[in-house]
Amino acid sequence: MNLEAALRPYLDQFNEEMSKYLVKRDLKPEPLYDAIRHLPIKGGGKRLRPIMAILAAQAVGGDSKKVMPYGVVLEVLHNFTLIHDDIMDDCDTRRGIEAVHAKWGVPMGILAGDTMFAMLFEILNQVDMSDALYRSISQDVAKLAREVCEGQYWDMFFEDQKKVEELQYYHMIERKTATFFEIAMKNGAELGNGEPQQVKKLAECGRLMGLAFQVWDDYLGVTSTDAALGKPARSDIVNGKKTLVYVATHGLLDPFDRRQFVDLYKKEDKTEKEIAEILKFMEKSGGLEKARTRAREFSSFAKATLADLPETAAKRLLLILCDFASNRPK
Amino acid sequence: MNLEAALRPYLDQFNEEMSKYLVKRDLKPEPLYDAIRHLPIKGGGKRLRPIMAILAAQAVGGDSKKVMPYGVVLEVLHNFTLIHDDIMDDCDTRRGIEAVHAKWGVPMGILAGDTMFAMLFEILNQVDMSDALYRSISQDVAKLAREVCEGQYWDMFFEDQKKVEELQYYHMIERKTATFFEIAMKNGAELGNGEPQQVKKLAECGRLMGLAFQVWDDYLGVTSTDAALGKPARSDIVNGKKTLVYVATHGLLDPFDRRQFVDLYKKEDKTEKEIAEILKFMEKSGGLEKARTRAREFSSFAKATLADLPETAAKRLLLILCDFASNRPK
Repeated sequence: MNLEAALRPYLDQFNEEMSKYLVKRDLKPEPLYDAIRHLPIKGGGKRLRPIMAILAAQAVGGDSKKVMPYGVVLEVLHNFTLIHDDIMDDCDTRRGIEAVHAKWGVPMGILAGDTMFAMLFEILNQVDMSDALYRSISQDVAKLAREVCEGQYWDMFFEDQKKVEELQYYHMIERKTATFFEIAMKNGAELGNGEPQQVKKLAECGRLMGLAFQVWDDYLGVTSTDAALGKPARSDIVNGKKTLVYVATHGLLDPFDRRQFVDLYKKEDKTEKEIAEILKFMEKSGGLEKARTRAREFSSFAKATLADLPETAAKRLLLILCDFASNRPK
Repeated sequence: MNLEAALRPYLDQFNEEMSKYLVKRDLKPEPLYDAIRHLPIKGGGKRLRPIMAILAAQAVGGDSKKVMPYGVVLEVLHNFTLIHDDIMDDCDTRRGIEAVHAKWGVPMGILAGDTMFAMLFEILNQVDMSDALYRSISQDVAKLAREVCEGQYWDMFFEDQKKVEELQYYHMIERKTATFFEIAMKNGAELGNGEPQQVKKLAECGRLMGLAFQVWDDYLGVTSTDAALGKPARSDIVNGKKTLVYVATHGLLDPFDRRQFVDLYKKEDKTEKEIAEILKFMEKSGGLEKARTRAREFSSFAKATLADLPETAAKRLLLILCDFASNRPK
């Protein structure tokens, strides 16, 4: 099955729903809301989080329409963190277009993100649900936002650390990515009136899929090209980011090579030749292969959590998404 | 009555409550939470917003203890906006200590603020209230946060505008300050189980008191000294900020003087002599006096909203606070 074609109706419906909240004419001051719309509307994006929430709801027999505005909440949260991350990481391009702060300046980037953070709780109130479920989901969203911030801290802090263990790495990406996917599917299943056991399984599925996506992202980050990524390829190597490929290579090299590798990796203004040397270390050590394998493992664990769910179109799509997580093309 | 002495027990109780949420040992990563604690704990502050919420609850016969964690929500929100505003306004000092971004860098300043924004919704969940009231108050807080952001936009944008009308000015400070005080007293009264009519009056009192505080702040901003303000005195003039004193002076001067005044005000790197000239324009035009009078008017309107409340200690303190708003010493 062609995943993109299968998801197209969901995407169209979701994008229409998002426009309702972000393209209204009464949103003022206009320049601020132009900056807010820039990334989620003009930049687009895969809409993975909303789609996972919607599919989780359908997988337990729920109504996808009810979950749509909740999907907008997730997408606005995700885009807000991207806007602020790009300022913190000093990254001027995102999804092939200028980052918000690159186009409007840092103050506007900060303010657009803050405004989106506030808005998403207002959008959450539009979801048709009981006050008790609203309270519970708004707490999940707040905790998620805090964990994403803590993950971003570790992400920035990692750069300064000499040695990063694989476990620490997972600690970071759990916060930055896996929790996001976990909450998306948990709340989606709750809004679909899933049984507690189903909610638990789908949340676990989201967490594992998040891990697969992030590790695969790290893998693509060293093997992909500019055009496919929508950001400069190998930027993780250029910036000396502690990805799983780095961590795994570090662990697999013998002490002599490791010393060379670490010294090269932390250099500022790396030459093309140095980047090629780093890549060679990643390949010959088996570090690159390890990241690939790990991503695939997470995908298959994620699929296993879905075993007890009834056979539905939504479940089939979720299974394909699990594979896609560690199989996206370069 | 000595206001400070009268508020001391509230302050002590509130500061203790705030420590419960911000000084817990399990808050990690530590450097991130050190940055978070810096302004609200080390920097201190007047705690006006929590105190107004607590007094509003007591004024309708409610229990102050129940409102305490809600006060923490307000103070964390306020401090988060200060941290981000200081980055946007490039201001390195706050409450007599270094601004968060000045001490830890801009990325940490952004991240500390974002984390606080997330935390405050988690703290809100600790307030003892029904799910329906939780939903309503969390919506008030989200809307408030969005309006504060929009106010900050106008505040930054004002600097670029040639002409600023008095009405536009109020439009801005309603968003930046008045709504904050309004919501503090509204939610405080709701948590105190006030009658709808009481809630409405106390909300209005908060809004007017907020206007009085902000206008008086503008007045102090040109007349006060470094030590009393905890930030560089006359920085509003130095930075060419469109305060009410500026707006009123602008409106009162004859066209020739106005031209000179505007040119001086928008100059970068003003000399001491130029600052003195600006001050002279503000005095002789009556602009400074007008700001003073407006602040006093708002105070008396605020007091009038309290007329129908039963005579309690909380009401007496609120009346004193209304006066204090436009009477704080330099």
